Amino acid sequence: MITALDHIAIAVPDLNKAIKRFMDDFGIEFKGTEEVERAKTTTAFFPIEGTQIELVHPIREGEGPVAKYLEKKGGGLHHICFSTDDILADVEMLKAKGYQFLSDAPTIGAHDCQVIFIHPKSSDGVLIELSQPPANH
Amino acid sequence: MITALDHIAIAVPDLNKAIKRFMDDFGIEFKGTEEVERAKTTTAFFPIEGTQIELVHPIREGEGPVAKYLEKKGGGLHHICFSTDDILADVEMLKAKGYQFLSDAPTIGAHDCQVIFIHPKSSDGVLIELSQPPANH
Repeated sequence: MITALDHIAIAVPDLNKAIKRFMDDFGIEFKGTEEVERAKTTTAFFPIEGTQIELVHPIREGEGPVAKYLEKKGGGLHHICFSTDDILADVEMLKAKGYQFLSDAPTIGAHDCQVIFIHPKSSDGVLIELSQPPANH
Repeated sequence: MITALDHIAIAVPDLNKAIKRFMDDFGIEFKGTEEVERAKTTTAFFPIEGTQIELVHPIREGEGPVAKYLEKKGGGLHHICFSTDDILADVEMLKAKGYQFLSDAPTIGAHDCQVIFIHPKSSDGVLIELSQPPANH
């Protein structure tokens, strides 16, 4: 079941500029970055009161899904992510209700979580990620 | 200063269907709706672990900023909102840094909060709301 809003992800055209904005202008604590090669993105983490803002940018310019989003939209709210305590059960339950996913099964995302994305067509145009932390988390 | 992610707002083309989705399919507790006449929107509240999902829909079809968003995009992530403990000081600080706002001064939003929106042009295409609860909150 879904237990929390793990994060919201914002696609940004200039990662360093956006990190500076959230850190200096908005005063939110910056907790470093991680490159997720599988998603071809660098992610900057800003935990805030029980959830997290993640700024995402392609590792290599022009490559991967975030690059495509930036080419089309220039930047913006990219997706939201819910934490789940049983991702396989949730995927099965949502598939039974007719939800479509971007992959057949969960893959490994940032922080070694198991992650899967619900297709935006299945949820009013919103890209929704489900994420379950590793067992030793 | 910014203290929390107050909510994320999702514009939905069919409010009752979306409420059912978040309540029944995603299992998130539904805390009722509020009509905010000034924004011409009905908002449905889904508090989740320190933040909140808000589903927004026009009070009257075709009228107001959310109606325009739905006409253009069909639905999606509309804005994020940060809580602040001093909205006037934050607006003054951000204006001094060159941020543009959608109004000159805060107005009254849902739950009688003072609210103001940063222009998406000032923050990589993301519409950001600042919100300060009423003093007796």
